[in-house]
Amino acid sequence: MPTLRIALAQVNSTVGDLAGNAAAITAWTRRAADRGARLVVFPEMMLTGYPVEDLALRASFVDASIEALHATAARLAREGLGGIAVVTGYLDRHAGPPPRFGQPAEGALDAAALLHGGRVLATSAKHHLPNYGVFDEYRYFLPGDRLPVFRLPCGEPGQAEPAVDVATAVCEDLWQDGGPVAVTRQARAGLLVVPNASPYEWGKGDARLELCVRRAREAGATLAYVNMMGGQDELVFDGDSIIVDAGGRLLARGPQFEEALIVADLGLPGAGPGAPPADTPADAHDGTTMTIHRVSVPVDPSPLTGSAPPTDAAGAGPGPVWPRLAPMAEVYAALVTGVRDYVRKNGFRSVILGLSGGIDSALTATIAADAIGPDLVHATIMPSRYSSAHSVADAEDLIKRQGLQARTVPIQPMVDAFQAELQVTGLAAENLQARVRGVILMSLSNASGHLVLTTGNKSEIATGYSTLYGDSAGGFGPIKDVPKTLVWGLARWRNEEAARRGQAPPIPENSITKPPSAELAPGQLDSDTLPDYTVLDAVLDDYVVEDKGAAELVAAGHDPALVDRVIAMVDHAEYKRRQYPPGPKITPRNFGRDRRLPITNHWQEPRTG
Amino acid sequence: MPTLRIALAQVNSTVGDLAGNAAAITAWTRRAADRGARLVVFPEMMLTGYPVEDLALRASFVDASIEALHATAARLAREGLGGIAVVTGYLDRHAGPPPRFGQPAEGALDAAALLHGGRVLATSAKHHLPNYGVFDEYRYFLPGDRLPVFRLPCGEPGQAEPAVDVATAVCEDLWQDGGPVAVTRQARAGLLVVPNASPYEWGKGDARLELCVRRAREAGATLAYVNMMGGQDELVFDGDSIIVDAGGRLLARGPQFEEALIVADLGLPGAGPGAPPADTPADAHDGTTMTIHRVSVPVDPSPLTGSAPPTDAAGAGPGPVWPRLAPMAEVYAALVTGVRDYVRKNGFRSVILGLSGGIDSALTATIAADAIGPDLVHATIMPSRYSSAHSVADAEDLIKRQGLQARTVPIQPMVDAFQAELQVTGLAAENLQARVRGVILMSLSNASGHLVLTTGNKSEIATGYSTLYGDSAGGFGPIKDVPKTLVWGLARWRNEEAARRGQAPPIPENSITKPPSAELAPGQLDSDTLPDYTVLDAVLDDYVVEDKGAAELVAAGHDPALVDRVIAMVDHAEYKRRQYPPGPKITPRNFGRDRRLPITNHWQEPRTG
Repeated sequence: MPTLRIALAQVNSTVGDLAGNAAAITAWTRRAADRGARLVVFPEMMLTGYPVEDLALRASFVDASIEALHATAARLAREGLGGIAVVTGYLDRHAGPPPRFGQPAEGALDAAALLHGGRVLATSAKHHLPNYGVFDEYRYFLPGDRLPVFRLPCGEPGQAEPAVDVATAVCEDLWQDGGPVAVTRQARAGLLVVPNASPYEWGKGDARLELCVRRAREAGATLAYVNMMGGQDELVFDGDSIIVDAGGRLLARGPQFEEALIVADLGLPGAGPGAPPADTPADAHDGTTMTIHRVSVPVDPSPLTGSAPPTDAAGAGPGPVWPRLAPMAEVYAALVTGVRDYVRKNGFRSVILGLSGGIDSALTATIAADAIGPDLVHATIMPSRYSSAHSVADAEDLIKRQGLQARTVPIQPMVDAFQAELQVTGLAAENLQARVRGVILMSLSNASGHLVLTTGNKSEIATGYSTLYGDSAGGFGPIKDVPKTLVWGLARWRNEEAARRGQAPPIPENSITKPPSAELAPGQLDSDTLPDYTVLDAVLDDYVVEDKGAAELVAAGHDPALVDRVIAMVDHAEYKRRQYPPGPKITPRNFGRDRRLPITNHWQEPRTG
Repeated sequence: MPTLRIALAQVNSTVGDLAGNAAAITAWTRRAADRGARLVVFPEMMLTGYPVEDLALRASFVDASIEALHATAARLAREGLGGIAVVTGYLDRHAGPPPRFGQPAEGALDAAALLHGGRVLATSAKHHLPNYGVFDEYRYFLPGDRLPVFRLPCGEPGQAEPAVDVATAVCEDLWQDGGPVAVTRQARAGLLVVPNASPYEWGKGDARLELCVRRAREAGATLAYVNMMGGQDELVFDGDSIIVDAGGRLLARGPQFEEALIVADLGLPGAGPGAPPADTPADAHDGTTMTIHRVSVPVDPSPLTGSAPPTDAAGAGPGPVWPRLAPMAEVYAALVTGVRDYVRKNGFRSVILGLSGGIDSALTATIAADAIGPDLVHATIMPSRYSSAHSVADAEDLIKRQGLQARTVPIQPMVDAFQAELQVTGLAAENLQARVRGVILMSLSNASGHLVLTTGNKSEIATGYSTLYGDSAGGFGPIKDVPKTLVWGLARWRNEEAARRGQAPPIPENSITKPPSAELAPGQLDSDTLPDYTVLDAVLDDYVVEDKGAAELVAAGHDPALVDRVIAMVDHAEYKRRQYPPGPKITPRNFGRDRRLPITNHWQEPRTG
């Protein structure tokens, strides 16, 4: 049984940065070659970043992607890396017979290419296009109908044999029945490599590994799943690349939320004597026919540069298996990654946020400090006449613990200046204070170039318990998709984690334990307005994430009166959410591209209470 | 040749308001019956409003739509309207064989139903689903594959003959080749009725009439196209319902931006002796097979209530033809409709906006006054030290001309209060003034319940020439999709229109003719920062609406240096647009659901200058 050394390049690419992403392909391919790999696989849309959204509709961008792909193939060869087979995702354009019913007449392709010897040897495109949740791929892409199977020599340099047959699918092709997985079995490929850009979501258990195990068995092939890493607007990609053999045994697994090269030695069935490339139709078991497109990777006469002995990669088993993060660590890492990449990829160096002494801003500041370093986090304390003594003390305590940049700007003079003209009361007066704080943060941002972080949590945003242009002002919302109960959980976990590492807890205990308050009126508490957060978050999860109607919510055990109250709050706040900045998605359904409701909307769930 | 009296009910329905929309169906059906119509046709998704977005994914809402449809059928009969055939759009659920490749396993249907005699006699669903521009119908719907053809008696009450065969398609089914139009011809139906929810776009010439003419000829049938009217978030539906005969002759046409009942007497080929309902497969000429589903509408023994003589409907021809609005009048009506419906359907009574004396706020105020009445428009003048004397005078002049509610709030004391702490300069100081104005408007809105209108135009929003949470603060942006040059054009047209009607021009001439300025710094003019608007708008139209790349823009004749400059401005402002409120779409590609670009985006069009 031939052994193939494969490398999965779990890389953080950037949307639109064709030059930077192409350079990353070259750099990581060199690392793979240095480790002796014969094949390196990059994520879906590695060359363009993912998702490119409407850039996929712009001809100049599609052209540039195709050009960059060919230039990358040439550059790899120029830099002595032509002998390693490279599979990478990129953006291509449909050419061929007219598409099937219901598909646009022309469109782009979510494509994968095989590069070798300075050339693009084969291309294919994602067959199953996701068009739900945050995905709109029917807007952009036409489905691929070709399974490339390339014969890759994996023995001594200069030898055509032994060789293995390698098939390629893309991301969603694993999640749907039939298609490339079914055709891989018919093609008798020994290995199926799958570039992915699969966003993180918490609470899915180990769905990805289970899926890989199932599909590897169905394909009758070893399956190598490589996932993108990094943040892109509201999405975070977690890496977590996986290799399982045809029997479903885990062979290697990459880290979560880190770039990594996962190198493994795979024992694979040898391919028979090389047949000339030929196209064969196959029943894809999904109502369509796909073409098996056979390609031979030429024998490279020279050894790869820096080839290392096979034992380097393997350790005890065929490949490394990074440990999985615990649930809280995983969510926290997603938030840190989301913030770090939004800051970095948008050209910011530093962030600014309002620090109230409460738990939301405390956690947001801590995430930011972990993401970019405490010295680049500018905490602004903006006390009002309603700020309690402990609020300012707790905020100062957090600043001291973490070494944040700090500034205090009391808001009363500005509030007074507005009130001298406006004399507003009640909710309007509360919102005024929040908006004065928003103006201060935006002014300091404009003056110093900091990115303003908003500190609202998902429970607030769901119920509209926030002020438009006030506490919701900012460019990025790190805990936008984090329910309040999880905010507390993450804060506790972060402190415990510090203790485990022998460090001082970064978040003041008082910020975690005190009853939450917006402090916009005397003695105000969240509980004056909102239900208990434990109860509220349970309803919100079923209404917002699970999309249950009122009757289903009651059937699920929620209090009928509470159900009516929560639904009314959520429905009424749609207009606020429409103007909220993006933040990292960590739940199965976030506010943003994932949940799209009209603002003008008279639908009221039938009252149950 | 039998004559059928048809009524097209060009109605303004409201998303989610099942009870209100059902009541409208009953009320308009009564009007149709009173006019002697034997068939009344309502728009697409009349019962639910359109687009319902993710409400289509909620089981409780789909259930409620189906229940409301049956309840409406029963109610019509109860109220003596069971004898008139009613075709209406509604939201249904897929039931039947598994869908084709690439379609979700389950989904909703953008459906149409035939109601008669208290029952739902036939249902079908849109076959071609739009999934481009503002449409995401593959996210929600499964395609229909049935063409209902119902035999409708149209002679004396109680007589089965003569009768005509009527087929039904839905909206996009007209815009794509094959499908219901092709099958209508095979079914030899005499009339094809088409419920629509087709949003307004300017500059399309008379594409809809041309389409109807072409499809009527292809179907070999008279074609009755009924379109929704009214505003829904960023969409405006213009009505403009159309009837053309099988030869392509225009028989009747509804008004634009008004609810109306268009009643016409159609000479149609008589149907043969009634065959029993049977399902026949037909080649839809689009790669699919559709089923012709034949239904007989029972003979109603009693005459319709209030039946009027046929001559009532006809006038000179078979039906009324409302005149088309001139281009400027059409755009203006779209904006007024968008504002009126956003205000009304979201439960507001009044609006507030900042009036600077410039043309943008002047036009916005005028649109608002035309939409809801000047006494419900609260104009706020917020002068700063940089406001020129003419600015305040022009604003006051406009208020006086139109009779708006007015208040003046000088911003210097608030700006000074911020500056005492912040001492910001340059752009930060400019933005501060704009944000102080935003806070004032939001405070007055919170205190009095006015909807805040933003006054930014499309050229500003495209280039980012606006302040986040400053002049962009508000719930609705009436001229958000109006390029600056068109702002001037609309203002001039509105004044000329007033003159034509013998009224005083509502907009001060000085607001139209003076050079535009944000007045945030001494002597500031837009031309300090932006290219001449005529030149700018031409580039923006090609870049934003046409999605041309840099090389294409230069090839189209734009100055290379200007192209680079404009592209850089537009690309950089994506984060601001993401937080901008909705406003009526009037161009083929608006900012909002129509143009979706990542914020984190390193793509730079190759420099040409």
